[in-house]
Amino acid sequence: MSKLKVTVWNEFRHEIYDESIRKIYPNGIHGAIADFLNKEDGIEAGTATLDEPQHGLTDDVLNSTDVLLWWGHIAHHEVSDDIVEKVFNRVVIDGMGLIVLHSGHYSKIFQKLMGTTCSLKWREIGEKERLWIVAPAHPIAEGLNEYIELPHEEMYGEYFDIPAPESLVFVSWFAGGEVFRSGCCYTRGMGKIFYFRPGHESLPTYYNTDIQKVIVNAIKWAAPKKHPKITYDHVPVPLENISEWKSGNNE
Amino acid sequence: MSKLKVTVWNEFRHEIYDESIRKIYPNGIHGAIADFLNKEDGIEAGTATLDEPQHGLTDDVLNSTDVLLWWGHIAHHEVSDDIVEKVFNRVVIDGMGLIVLHSGHYSKIFQKLMGTTCSLKWREIGEKERLWIVAPAHPIAEGLNEYIELPHEEMYGEYFDIPAPESLVFVSWFAGGEVFRSGCCYTRGMGKIFYFRPGHESLPTYYNTDIQKVIVNAIKWAAPKKHPKITYDHVPVPLENISEWKSGNNE
Amino acid sequence: MSKLKVTVWNEFRHEIYDESIRKIYPNGIHGAIADFLNKEDGIEAGTATLDEPQHGLTDDVLNSTDVLLWWGHIAHHEVSDDIVEKVFNRVVIDGMGLIVLHSGHYSKIFQKLMGTTCSLKWREIGEKERLWIVAPAHPIAEGLNEYIELPHEEMYGEYFDIPAPESLVFVSWFAGGEVFRSGCCYTRGMGKIFYFRPGHESLPTYYNTDIQKVIVNAIKWAAPKKHPKITYDHVPVPLENISEWKSGNNE
Amino acid sequence: MSKLKVTVWNEFRHEIYDESIRKIYPNGIHGAIADFLNKEDGIEAGTATLDEPQHGLTDDVLNSTDVLLWWGHIAHHEVSDDIVEKVFNRVVIDGMGLIVLHSGHYSKIFQKLMGTTCSLKWREIGEKERLWIVAPAHPIAEGLNEYIELPHEEMYGEYFDIPAPESLVFVSWFAGGEVFRSGCCYTRGMGKIFYFRPGHESLPTYYNTDIQKVIVNAIKWAAPKKHPKITYDHVPVPLENISEWKSGNNE
Repeated sequence: MSKLKVTVWNEFRHEIYDESIRKIYPNGIHGAIADFLNKEDGIEAGTATLDEPQHGLTDDVLNSTDVLLWWGHIAHHEVSDDIVEKVFNRVVIDGMGLIVLHSGHYSKIFQKLMGTTCSLKWREIGEKERLWIVAPAHPIAEGLNEYIELPHEEMYGEYFDIPAPESLVFVSWFAGGEVFRSGCCYTRGMGKIFYFRPGHESLPTYYNTDIQKVIVNAIKWAAPKKHPKITYDHVPVPLENISEWKSGNNE
Repeated sequence: MSKLKVTVWNEFRHEIYDESIRKIYPNGIHGAIADFLNKEDGIEAGTATLDEPQHGLTDDVLNSTDVLLWWGHIAHHEVSDDIVEKVFNRVVIDGMGLIVLHSGHYSKIFQKLMGTTCSLKWREIGEKERLWIVAPAHPIAEGLNEYIELPHEEMYGEYFDIPAPESLVFVSWFAGGEVFRSGCCYTRGMGKIFYFRPGHESLPTYYNTDIQKVIVNAIKWAAPKKHPKITYDHVPVPLENISEWKSGNNE
Repeated sequence: MSKLKVTVWNEFRHEIYDESIRKIYPNGIHGAIADFLNKEDGIEAGTATLDEPQHGLTDDVLNSTDVLLWWGHIAHHEVSDDIVEKVFNRVVIDGMGLIVLHSGHYSKIFQKLMGTTCSLKWREIGEKERLWIVAPAHPIAEGLNEYIELPHEEMYGEYFDIPAPESLVFVSWFAGGEVFRSGCCYTRGMGKIFYFRPGHESLPTYYNTDIQKVIVNAIKWAAPKKHPKITYDHVPVPLENISEWKSGNNE
Repeated sequence: MSKLKVTVWNEFRHEIYDESIRKIYPNGIHGAIADFLNKEDGIEAGTATLDEPQHGLTDDVLNSTDVLLWWGHIAHHEVSDDIVEKVFNRVVIDGMGLIVLHSGHYSKIFQKLMGTTCSLKWREIGEKERLWIVAPAHPIAEGLNEYIELPHEEMYGEYFDIPAPESLVFVSWFAGGEVFRSGCCYTRGMGKIFYFRPGHESLPTYYNTDIQKVIVNAIKWAAPKKHPKITYDHVPVPLENISEWKSGNNE
C-alpha cells in the first residue's frame, strides 16, 4: 500500500520572532509535527509555510497531498484568497483531508468551510486541560485512554461558534472553569475535516504522545477514499421512461 | 404578541423579461409569497428585490427583519458582497432566520453559510414531484399529510453538495428516477436556516397551499429567540480559584 | 390557547425514608417541580408516583398528558414493564414529550428509548457544576445566560453511554475534573425527548430559577405538534402508474 | 493483519419452505452472502441460523465475531430474548459491528438498539429501485457509482420509524412513487450499526456485485477498533485537588 502524503502547513512566525517559542519548536511547529508523522509506517509528511512562494502550497504540492494540516495564528489575513480557494476545492471537490489545529480555528479556510465566525473564548495562563472522549467508538479515539491530560495549555472556552459537529470526539475540561468541544469532525463535499484544539505555540503540546496519536488517527480517518464520481448540472434525458409529466400544461 | 417581520427577497428578473413567467407571477414571486404570508395572523411580510438600491436590503430593513426569504436564479453574481456580508452577520451573530428557496441553492449567501459548492443535478420537463416527510415530529411538518404532491416541477437530483442537514424534513421523489433532500435545517451561530427545494419560476408552485404551509411553518421555526448573550475572546481572570497551573513553568 | 398538560412522575422514596431529603423537598421532588410549573401561564401540571396504583400513570392520565417528566433513582426495577410499554407508545406513536431528569438516566423508559446502557460516572461530594450552553440558538437555551452555575451538585462524568444527541444544548464542567453532556435532545417516532442532568435529591437544585427556566423551555420544545398521520405496512396499489416492473420475471 | 471474523445470521425459513425461493438461494441467503464474503482477502465468514441450538450464536461464536449480519423476516418472535440480550451486549459493550439487512428492520435486536418501532411501508410487485448516494465521502460508498440500480425489488417506503441516522448514505427511489432511507449508520456504545435495505428473499439481490460491495464496505466500517477502556459508576476520589465544594453545607 502506498503511503499517505501529508503536508503540514504552518504560519511559522512565532518561532522566528520569539526566542522562547523557538526553544520549544526549534524547527517550527511544522517541523515537530512532520517529525513524528514520518516515524509512522504509512505516512510520508512534508511541510509548507506562509512565507514560501504560494505559501508553499503550489499546485504540485496540493495535488499530491492526501491530508493537509493547518496551524496559523497571527497572520491569517496574510494567507492569499487564491490559495484558500485552491485548498477549498481540493477538500470539497477532490476529497483531500484537512486537519485544523488550535488557533487555526480563525483561519480563512476553516471559516470558509464552516460558514460561521469560529469565535471562542481564550485565556493564556497555562492551566490544566483534560480532553475527555465522548465518542469512544470513533476511529480517532482508537488506542487512547478515557481522557488525555495536558498539564499546561491555553484555555479555549465555549461558546465556540461552529456548526454542530457531525461527530464530537473530545470535550475539554479546563481548571479555570470552562469546557470546549475540542475534537470536531465534519464532511464538506468529498472531503473530511477534523478540528483539534490543543497546540499552543508556547507549550510543548505536540511532543505529547497522546496528542500525536490523535493526529495520526485523524489523518487516517480524513484520508481520501475512492469516492463515487459525481455528475452535476443538466440531466437532459429522464432516467426513467415516464409519461406522467406529458399530461402537464407547463412544458 | 408582536408579529414576525418577514422580508421576501427576490431576484425579480424572470418575471420582467419573460411574459410566460409574468403571467404566473404578475407581481413577482416575492409578491405571491408576501401575499399569502400577510394572510397569516402572526406575520407581517415585506419584499425586497435585486434592482432596488442595496438590493432593497438597507440596514433599516435588515435590522428589523426576523426572517428573510431568498429566491434567486440567474443573477446570483450581481448580488453585492457587502450585502451578503450583512445578511451573513444578521443570521450568524444576531439570529435572523433565513429560508432559501429553490434555485437560491446557488446564491452567495447560501454557499457562504454551507461551506460547500451547493451543486446538484437538474432537469426541466415539468415532471411529477412528491415530497415525502422523513421527520414527522419536526415543527416544519406540522399539519401536513405524509407527502406533498406537485404535478409538475423542475427536477433537482442528488448528489446535492451540502453538509448533512441537522434535520432532514423532506425527501423528494421525481418521476424521472431521482431523489433529493428537499427540506434541510441548519444552525449557524445564533441563526436558523431552512433550505426548501420547490418553486421553479415557470410553475405555479407557490400557490400550492401545502407549499405555503411549509413556508409558514419554517418561518415560525426560524424566528429568532432571545438567545444567551455570548462573550468572546479574552477571559483574563480564571473563573475558578485555581492553583494547579501555578506550578507550571510557562507563565 | 389551551394549556399544556404536564405530568411530573417521581419515584418518591428518598423523600419518605430520609429526613434530610424530606427537609429539602417536603412535598417530594414532584411537588417542588409541579409547583413552579403551575406558576407558568401556559402549563397545567399534575403529579404521579411509583407507589400509586399503576404508578399513577393510568390510561386516563397518560392519554391526557402532553409532556411527562421522569425522576427515578433507587427503584427503577420496580417500575412495571407494562407501564414502560405504555409510556413508550405514548412517546413514539402519539408524540407525547418526555423529559428525563438526573438519575432517570438509568430508568427503563430512557434505556428503551436510547438503545444503550446509559451508564456514566458519578461522585457525590457536592462540588461545583457549571452548565455551559453549546447551542445558544436552541429554544431550550432561550433567555438564559452563557452558563448556569450550581454551587453544589452530584458529579456525573463521561463517558455517558447514550447515542450522540440530535442537539447537544449543555455541557457541564465539574470542579473535580470531569465534563458531561448535560442537556441532550432526541426524537423517537412522533415524540421528543430531553435529558437534563442536574437534580440530585439531597440538594435544592429544583429551586434554582435557571434550572426551572430550562425545564419550562424543554416542556415547550417537547410539546406534541399536530404531526402528519403516518400509514404503515402494506401499500397494495402502486402510487404511480408504472410499467417498468411488469417486464420483470419475479412476479 | 488477521482477518475480520464475520457471522452471517439468517432466519433460514423461506428457503426451506418455499421452492421458488430455494431456487434463488439454494444454500440459503446466509450461504450466498458468506460465499461472496469469503472471496474477500480480509474476511472470514461463517453462518448461523435460527433453528440451530442457541440460533447458532453460542458464546464462542459471538465472542469471536467482529461483525454480525442479520437477516430475518417471518420468525422474529422466535428469536430468544436471551440471545438478543447477548448480541446487544456484544455490540454496545464490546463493540461488535452489526449489519441489519432488509426485513431485519423488524428484528428484536434492531428495535432494541433503535428505541423506535422501525415500522415502514412495503409493496411487493418487484418494481425498479435506485439507491442514490447522498454521502459520497462515506467509507461505505467507496468505489461505487452515483447510484445502484436494482431492476426488481420489494418496495420499502417512508415514513421509516427510526432515529435520524448519524450518517445517511443511501436514499432509494422506487418506480411506484416512494423514497426510503436505505443506508443508515448508527453508533451504540462501542458498536457500529448499519441498516441496509435491499435483499428481498424472492429476488437475486445478494448476487448483485454493487450490493456485495456495499456489504463488504459496511463490514470494514463496522469492524471494532481498539476503543478506550471506559470506567463507569463511582469515582470516589476527586480527580482534581479541589477546595470549592468544601464550603458547601450538603456534605
